[in-house]
Amino acid sequence: MDLISLADYEKAARDKLSVELWDFIAGGVGREVSLRRNCAAFDDFPLVPRFLVEVSERSTSTTVLGTQVSFPVMTAPAGTQGRVYPDGDLAVTRAVGSAGTIAVVTIAAEYSLEHVADIASGPLWFQLFHYGDDLTSELVSRAEAAGYAAVCIAVDTVAGSPKDRDLHNRYVANRGRAFASLAGRPEATVFTQRRPDVFAWSDLDRLVSMTQLPIVIKGIMSPADAVLAAEHGAAGIVVSNHGARSRDGTLSTIEALPAIADAAGDRVELFLDSGVRRGIDVVRALALGARAVLIGRPVFWGLAVDGERGVRAVLDILRDEFDLAMASCGKTSPSELSTEVLAV
Amino acid sequence: MDLISLADYEKAARDKLSVELWDFIAGGVGREVSLRRNCAAFDDFPLVPRFLVEVSERSTSTTVLGTQVSFPVMTAPAGTQGRVYPDGDLAVTRAVGSAGTIAVVTIAAEYSLEHVADIASGPLWFQLFHYGDDLTSELVSRAEAAGYAAVCIAVDTVAGSPKDRDLHNRYVANRGRAFASLAGRPEATVFTQRRPDVFAWSDLDRLVSMTQLPIVIKGIMSPADAVLAAEHGAAGIVVSNHGARSRDGTLSTIEALPAIADAAGDRVELFLDSGVRRGIDVVRALALGARAVLIGRPVFWGLAVDGERGVRAVLDILRDEFDLAMASCGKTSPSELSTEVLAV
Amino acid sequence: MDLISLADYEKAARDKLSVELWDFIAGGVGREVSLRRNCAAFDDFPLVPRFLVEVSERSTSTTVLGTQVSFPVMTAPAGTQGRVYPDGDLAVTRAVGSAGTIAVVTIAAEYSLEHVADIASGPLWFQLFHYGDDLTSELVSRAEAAGYAAVCIAVDTVAGSPKDRDLHNRYVANRGRAFASLAGRPEATVFTQRRPDVFAWSDLDRLVSMTQLPIVIKGIMSPADAVLAAEHGAAGIVVSNHGARSRDGTLSTIEALPAIADAAGDRVELFLDSGVRRGIDVVRALALGARAVLIGRPVFWGLAVDGERGVRAVLDILRDEFDLAMASCGKTSPSELSTEVLAV
Amino acid sequence: MDLISLADYEKAARDKLSVELWDFIAGGVGREVSLRRNCAAFDDFPLVPRFLVEVSERSTSTTVLGTQVSFPVMTAPAGTQGRVYPDGDLAVTRAVGSAGTIAVVTIAAEYSLEHVADIASGPLWFQLFHYGDDLTSELVSRAEAAGYAAVCIAVDTVAGSPKDRDLHNRYVANRGRAFASLAGRPEATVFTQRRPDVFAWSDLDRLVSMTQLPIVIKGIMSPADAVLAAEHGAAGIVVSNHGARSRDGTLSTIEALPAIADAAGDRVELFLDSGVRRGIDVVRALALGARAVLIGRPVFWGLAVDGERGVRAVLDILRDEFDLAMASCGKTSPSELSTEVLAV
Repeated sequence: MDLISLADYEKAARDKLSVELWDFIAGGVGREVSLRRNCAAFDDFPLVPRFLVEVSERSTSTTVLGTQVSFPVMTAPAGTQGRVYPDGDLAVTRAVGSAGTIAVVTIAAEYSLEHVADIASGPLWFQLFHYGDDLTSELVSRAEAAGYAAVCIAVDTVAGSPKDRDLHNRYVANRGRAFASLAGRPEATVFTQRRPDVFAWSDLDRLVSMTQLPIVIKGIMSPADAVLAAEHGAAGIVVSNHGARSRDGTLSTIEALPAIADAAGDRVELFLDSGVRRGIDVVRALALGARAVLIGRPVFWGLAVDGERGVRAVLDILRDEFDLAMASCGKTSPSELSTEVLAV
Repeated sequence: MDLISLADYEKAARDKLSVELWDFIAGGVGREVSLRRNCAAFDDFPLVPRFLVEVSERSTSTTVLGTQVSFPVMTAPAGTQGRVYPDGDLAVTRAVGSAGTIAVVTIAAEYSLEHVADIASGPLWFQLFHYGDDLTSELVSRAEAAGYAAVCIAVDTVAGSPKDRDLHNRYVANRGRAFASLAGRPEATVFTQRRPDVFAWSDLDRLVSMTQLPIVIKGIMSPADAVLAAEHGAAGIVVSNHGARSRDGTLSTIEALPAIADAAGDRVELFLDSGVRRGIDVVRALALGARAVLIGRPVFWGLAVDGERGVRAVLDILRDEFDLAMASCGKTSPSELSTEVLAV
Repeated sequence: MDLISLADYEKAARDKLSVELWDFIAGGVGREVSLRRNCAAFDDFPLVPRFLVEVSERSTSTTVLGTQVSFPVMTAPAGTQGRVYPDGDLAVTRAVGSAGTIAVVTIAAEYSLEHVADIASGPLWFQLFHYGDDLTSELVSRAEAAGYAAVCIAVDTVAGSPKDRDLHNRYVANRGRAFASLAGRPEATVFTQRRPDVFAWSDLDRLVSMTQLPIVIKGIMSPADAVLAAEHGAAGIVVSNHGARSRDGTLSTIEALPAIADAAGDRVELFLDSGVRRGIDVVRALALGARAVLIGRPVFWGLAVDGERGVRAVLDILRDEFDLAMASCGKTSPSELSTEVLAV
Repeated sequence: MDLISLADYEKAARDKLSVELWDFIAGGVGREVSLRRNCAAFDDFPLVPRFLVEVSERSTSTTVLGTQVSFPVMTAPAGTQGRVYPDGDLAVTRAVGSAGTIAVVTIAAEYSLEHVADIASGPLWFQLFHYGDDLTSELVSRAEAAGYAAVCIAVDTVAGSPKDRDLHNRYVANRGRAFASLAGRPEATVFTQRRPDVFAWSDLDRLVSMTQLPIVIKGIMSPADAVLAAEHGAAGIVVSNHGARSRDGTLSTIEALPAIADAAGDRVELFLDSGVRRGIDVVRALALGARAVLIGRPVFWGLAVDGERGVRAVLDILRDEFDLAMASCGKTSPSELSTEVLAV
């Protein structure tokens, strides 16, 4: 079957991967209510097509934190890519670079942040957890030195909230693999040793003051945290429930976005992940205040199907769908998208 | 099985057609959310039956843009009818004429607009795309000369938004067939060569000024575009999302209609297609401001089952259902239908 | 399997009856949206249980139009009972009498209204259609003479709106059977010869003036018609969409009831049918303004399973369920039920 | 399969138990609308995760009516535990004690209230019905003497409302078993001889005056009854619809809670049962005003799977899930939970 949509890649990937690995990628925590809600809620924001508008000259490119991207879709930080395809982290980085957008490279990659930066052909962000001031500072400095465009701190850690599917499958994340960026350090050997829960807003102040890089907080789901992030110097926020992998029972991200945009949209750049599956979903997120979206599971689908080429294909599909959906709304640029394109 | 309802014709047609052709007719773009929503949303507008009213003397006839029709259902412009049944375009035209209503003949027909007009026994509209001023003007002049009652310009083109089902089936629309009305012209050979996206409201002004025919804009889904169409001289608007064949994620047409009627219902005649399957749906559309509805897929079902006779049967079913539904609301004429018959 | 609930009787009846007869009883018109909505909508009116109230002394009895009934459930007028069980009309009448409530005897019964009255052990209502002044007057006079307690005129005729299922099955209602109450008259031989659509409110005035019996209008679904019925002298109204057998796409009756009760509940007694399946549904209808409910299909289920005994069992189940549900709301009598028992 | 969640225990228990016993435990009355609603409605209260808050030092412990518990989950009073596992009542009591919370011991246990108190390692509540003043007073006195911390009177009796499933299965509750606490008394031999419906608010006044123990009324579903309970001296209320085992068609308990909390939340301690299946549900109940929740069916699942160990496992799962869910909301103690953690 020709692979036309991300849904096709999803099906094809499922056929390629073991049940254990598939479940690890596909599953959500708890009773998976948020997992379903993440995708389904996009359809509650109908789009308004417009016509007889000149949209033949248009561009999908935009900037995220000052960096030009060819279209407003980035890849989310995600470990395990090396299990899905040999050197998966690198394949994703290459695909994203060739597509002209940004990969958010995870600390959980099998290659060090410096190695990934070396093979990259475009701008990158580096995602880490908070490991306490010293190690965190060191990692941020290394990312800055390696040329990363931004640092993304994931605050919605999944440590301590394994998914039922993984427990049933006795799936062990990162089995026997150290985080390459932490090679030789004790923190690298025990995944849960990190203590992101002790990351406090005052720590963010310190981080902001010690680096030139913009800092993005990933995992925000409340207007209150969005305001705090802005007040403490974050340049960006990823509205995310971690693909419903960290906690169940929350709003979907597209539902959470409007109130967050109201509260802090003029002070930080907003991003969104969790549930984006079609170009129309990207339009919806941008219409509600996001500057770009991140995709997680679809990257795995592309990777599983055809490595770098598969990831690139997934990105190309989304870009083309986004382009068409944007034009359908009578708009020629991501910056023109607003709630005006929604029937709400 | 006796064919009682349009649903019966749908089932029977599915049995007759190849999977590829069926999918082309039945499918919608994207994840087919709008496809389902188009039909389902009608049920959100409950009807209020009325009794002890004299409705034995009643008529389903009305006028559309000044032309008398026997009941407020027309056939939507649609290519591919010739693949479903030999000389399908002509069969539809004949069936519609014998039923006393109007067929909207498409530029994509296998016969030229003049040929179709020749064999017609009743009034017709001609649907075209915008091909630039010269060709468009020429086509409008030809339609006028051939006796068409109106010109319908489809603005919600499907070019560039193929349906996943068709891509999976490697279905090629209009394979090897030129548009007969464009025979001998380069535009005829490449379906997508047309550039409807460069059609602008100012072009509509010019078209309006060069013809005596009323011009209908098909594919409007927003109050704003409805107002623009009225301001630029359109006589009618078809509220349509192209049967969910051009873009996914929009409102259903019956949901979009009320706001459009509020905005422009006193300045243009409103029509609606996409999702009409029962006479009660016709009543709902008229109650919310439409003057008539158009049917698309049901025409294919009738055609596939029994050619001209099948199309006529589909129309007869809808007329009888509409008549009964109108009477059930205590009304004796389409012009009496208003929101008063809805429980909203 | 022991038959515990009406749902059990439904299943058992389905096993006993031919597909054609089952479909005739079970089906609804159109796409059966109202059929499903009739039952499902009851659940949108949650009940509020109350406790520590003295409810050990309670009674389910009430009056309907001045006649005492043992509980507020009557049987709806319905032809075809003789096909489901030998002498079905009589079996239903006997069962209802023994249960202490009222059967609404239909003109479509296989026995004349006088015959049915003769074998009855309790009060009856007589249901007819409007056949023009002369015959209608004659029938009303006969009903009065035969001791009926009220006359019920069904205005939501099903003539002209056959159900798809019946047409598929080529089911012919009342095949070869005359209405016994019209024996020897030409009107009796053609079911559809009656013209209820020419029944006007002024005809109701005349009927009211010519009889001592209270007149009940069955089939009202709008506040406007309810007010008109009251103004023209009706003593009662059955809020009914004929079990979704006459028209599809309406509100369910429990949804329609509140506005009707607001408009006319202080001027006429309100009844409700269509979708009542449990005692809690009876409580809901009474809480929203109905004086009693009528059941239609459940009577057929009882009849099919065990004739008179089956109908009696169905009534007993509903009475016991109603009694318990009423007590659960802290009430000891039907007259105490109001919106206070609903969580809305 | 490893048993990870309560849902896993449910599946495993189903495999272990006879259909009759399973249905008795799993089923609800009527058409089981409330049964489904009890669980599903929790998902209508989305949680708001918070981050960068110091939650590493936290405690799940709280007090219920002045008694310390390790986390805000108690076990609901329930007969039949002895059928599911030998000496089931004792196994549950032991498991709950070892988990550091409170078991509500039922009068329907196979062991006398004194016997259960003897083997208990932690605080207990005693649940009884109202049997008239004398016996009730005697039982309360015995509970006080045996060291129970509170008396819980179930007012939402299931007597007279058997579940369809049980009737189909001809399941007889408490077959041949007397209530041990009533050994030798005539009341013990006939389960339904008790007449809780004659329990009146004035009886509650008397009970309150005759004992030092706090009295909890279980089964309240209305703000009005909650206010009455407070006025008549109840120390606590369990918002409960008896797991949808006593009446169908009510709100779910989580839907009923907010209005009850508004009406009486400052005068009595509120508890909730019926439908709690995950730690996030416990957070939701506490956020809406409950001090703790009770679990019923999940106790049976644990018991069926592995006796005392199974019950303990079920409690441990809920405690860990609650702990994580509380922390996810940025809270470190049950007392901090309020509507602020809900996206409503």
